[in-house]
Amino acid sequence: MEDEKIVEKVTTLIENKRINELRKYLENINSADFPSIFENIDDEKIIMVYRLLSKEKAAEVFVELEHDDQENLINCLTDKEIKNVMNKIFMDDAVDLIEEMPANVVKRILANTKSENRKIINELLKYPEDTAGSLMTTEFIDLKENMTVEKAFDVIKAKGLQKETVYNCYILSADRKLLGVLDIKDLLIAETDELVKEIMDTNVIKVQTLEDQEEVTKVFDKYDLVAIPVVDKENRLVGIITIDDAIDVMQEETEEDFELMAGITSTTDDSYFKTSVFTHAKNRILWLLLLMLSATITGTIMTSFENTIATLPILVAFIPMLMDTGGNCGSQSSTLIIRGLATDEIATKDLFKVIWKELRVSLVVGVVLAVVNGIRIAVQYHNTLIAIVVGITLICIVISAKLIGGILPIIAKKMKLDPALMASPIITTIVDVISVTVFFGLSTLILNI
Amino acid sequence: MEDEKIVEKVTTLIENKRINELRKYLENINSADFPSIFENIDDEKIIMVYRLLSKEKAAEVFVELEHDDQENLINCLTDKEIKNVMNKIFMDDAVDLIEEMPANVVKRILANTKSENRKIINELLKYPEDTAGSLMTTEFIDLKENMTVEKAFDVIKAKGLQKETVYNCYILSADRKLLGVLDIKDLLIAETDELVKEIMDTNVIKVQTLEDQEEVTKVFDKYDLVAIPVVDKENRLVGIITIDDAIDVMQEETEEDFELMAGITSTTDDSYFKTSVFTHAKNRILWLLLLMLSATITGTIMTSFENTIATLPILVAFIPMLMDTGGNCGSQSSTLIIRGLATDEIATKDLFKVIWKELRVSLVVGVVLAVVNGIRIAVQYHNTLIAIVVGITLICIVISAKLIGGILPIIAKKMKLDPALMASPIITTIVDVISVTVFFGLSTLILNI
Repeated sequence: MEDEKIVEKVTTLIENKRINELRKYLENINSADFPSIFENIDDEKIIMVYRLLSKEKAAEVFVELEHDDQENLINCLTDKEIKNVMNKIFMDDAVDLIEEMPANVVKRILANTKSENRKIINELLKYPEDTAGSLMTTEFIDLKENMTVEKAFDVIKAKGLQKETVYNCYILSADRKLLGVLDIKDLLIAETDELVKEIMDTNVIKVQTLEDQEEVTKVFDKYDLVAIPVVDKENRLVGIITIDDAIDVMQEETEEDFELMAGITSTTDDSYFKTSVFTHAKNRILWLLLLMLSATITGTIMTSFENTIATLPILVAFIPMLMDTGGNCGSQSSTLIIRGLATDEIATKDLFKVIWKELRVSLVVGVVLAVVNGIRIAVQYHNTLIAIVVGITLICIVISAKLIGGILPIIAKKMKLDPALMASPIITTIVDVISVTVFFGLSTLILNI
Repeated sequence: MEDEKIVEKVTTLIENKRINELRKYLENINSADFPSIFENIDDEKIIMVYRLLSKEKAAEVFVELEHDDQENLINCLTDKEIKNVMNKIFMDDAVDLIEEMPANVVKRILANTKSENRKIINELLKYPEDTAGSLMTTEFIDLKENMTVEKAFDVIKAKGLQKETVYNCYILSADRKLLGVLDIKDLLIAETDELVKEIMDTNVIKVQTLEDQEEVTKVFDKYDLVAIPVVDKENRLVGIITIDDAIDVMQEETEEDFELMAGITSTTDDSYFKTSVFTHAKNRILWLLLLMLSATITGTIMTSFENTIATLPILVAFIPMLMDTGGNCGSQSSTLIIRGLATDEIATKDLFKVIWKELRVSLVVGVVLAVVNGIRIAVQYHNTLIAIVVGITLICIVISAKLIGGILPIIAKKMKLDPALMASPIITTIVDVISVTVFFGLSTLILNI
């Protein structure tokens, strides 16, 4: 709603060429609202609008934009304008930008970056993807332990504007080792002549540069932090990660899990519409092919019961119901276990606790489904024997589906694979084989075919 | 790792009765580490450990604990101890506690709460679940517009400790209308004699008390906020929501989506192991029953092609592969669309854009699958005609599955239902019907049975 109003206002001002009014209006809009403005106006107007912004605003808006808009902008901007952006944005945003732009654009960006920043960017680019080091920025407030609170405020006043956050300040030794942390609240309620070391918290929650980014988000969540210091192996402070970037990672990881669990191999961060048809097809086809070919095993097993089917073709009518129920039971369990593992509620050492739980749950579920379905069959086909065969099969399928769904994600994690791999598609394929074998096996046995 | 070390240390100190050392050690542990300590020691030791904590720490630790530990503790604590906790915790945590505890415990909690706080709690309890009002707390820093920066610091110094956050301060008019917001950074870099109104941001990002909590999290994410003011219809500031609570909501909503998409009706916030076998069964059985009975439709359709099956029983062998592929294709699309809708990347007005995209993707995917599978059938069965029938069926199934998977979540959203309902289980059941009908229909037609 809000978005649409802003876009409407901007387009009206452009159309009526009320440039001065537009300039004032733009300056008061939150930078985070610009992507939706740019999405709704023509490319040539984008550069016109962008040039109306003050230097500060221009840099702020730039980092909020989508990658394709950033690329288009850079291609239109002068060197001086690029320099302004690169002087003002934080180092983590600079690194993100460089990682996403094509080589010729990167060349131009770096050519317009101060050499000291270029050095920092190059250092940051060395950290492996998905580590704390690749997420952090280098603009933090550092204090000395023998400073007074008054002096600390002077430091913040002098440097605060260029720092990504002042909510937390870090106390470093002469050799830049991390000694403590100060929440700005503790500074504000302290007496001005107290020493920083008297009020700082020495029990610092921190992460190492090579820590996995998913672990970093868990630390944020557990300790309710707004920023986390990143140290090297010698406990030297090299950067900080702020909560907004941690939230982005949480969302990325969630999307990855959703896609993996649906059998999609994601190769891009782009949105649904920005991903090309070809890329969409490529992302989806690998798993489909694999699962399609695996599913033929179930088919082959069915062929081996050709005689049973020929004698009692009605049996085939139960196949979809049995297969679907097995698949659904399995994916319920695997989803719960995959999420439990992702949120650390379940650990790999809980394997037998999970088995014991799923076993009992599946017994309850299996018996209820078997009874309801038994009644349906008895009423529909007047055949108690088939009702019994289908009922026993259902119980066997539910139990095995829930056990497999419970066990496989844990085993995957033990093998250092992503548990989300063991979701609905794979579980369904495995449970299908069991369903068909148990059903036709029991039918042959009990119905004396 | 870290957790285990702390737990080990604590248990050793308890066993060796080194109480003074334990007291000191506990005071230095982060409150967020206490739940895992309490999980690993006996109930009677929990109260012993808890009583070693200072008053401040005791309140801090209390809000971090699991609900069952909180309940056990309250039953062991004296009225005075409960009073201490209730005097120190923030109002949003008090409300959470009261919402989760059984009636007799709530009675005791409220009896030990100051009457002014009891009034606030009762006000907060009135906001509907899942709204901004139900998430907010009332401890924020409010300033007046004509204060100097120096005076503002005095206010923060005097009241800061009792406020949930000092990162953002809110400027109110005499009748408590929200006039502006000040990030603490802006206060810190301002001159002491400047007026608050000269530096405050009047373009305040805020939410209304009845705003849906999911929308609130989107505002946090879009504008990279650490706290958001909540206003009533008259723009009076009634509370704030902090980022840590917003993150909890994000995670809750994600879990809900995961569970709903796997056909689980979640009725509890408890973890996997804390949920009883009976509750697990109850949460899973509804969808399984519904889907099991729907799947019998597919079975009934198959029975109607009894003659076709009797003439060419080999056809049955392709059923599992066709059904599974259809189900997988559909759930890939529905997952992408459900997530796109959840993250606002896709809007309901994009229905035709989605259809056009899925149509093209499914054509590419369908043709590739049909060709690969055609080759396999030609090689395995030396029967080109069957390869053609299965191939055409595959293409039809992929297209319809992807269209249904793309369309249903959007329609659900238009009907104000949760799009996550339209996930794998339902799509699979619908696509099964199409798969079987198309396959046997085409077989009868092309193979002249």
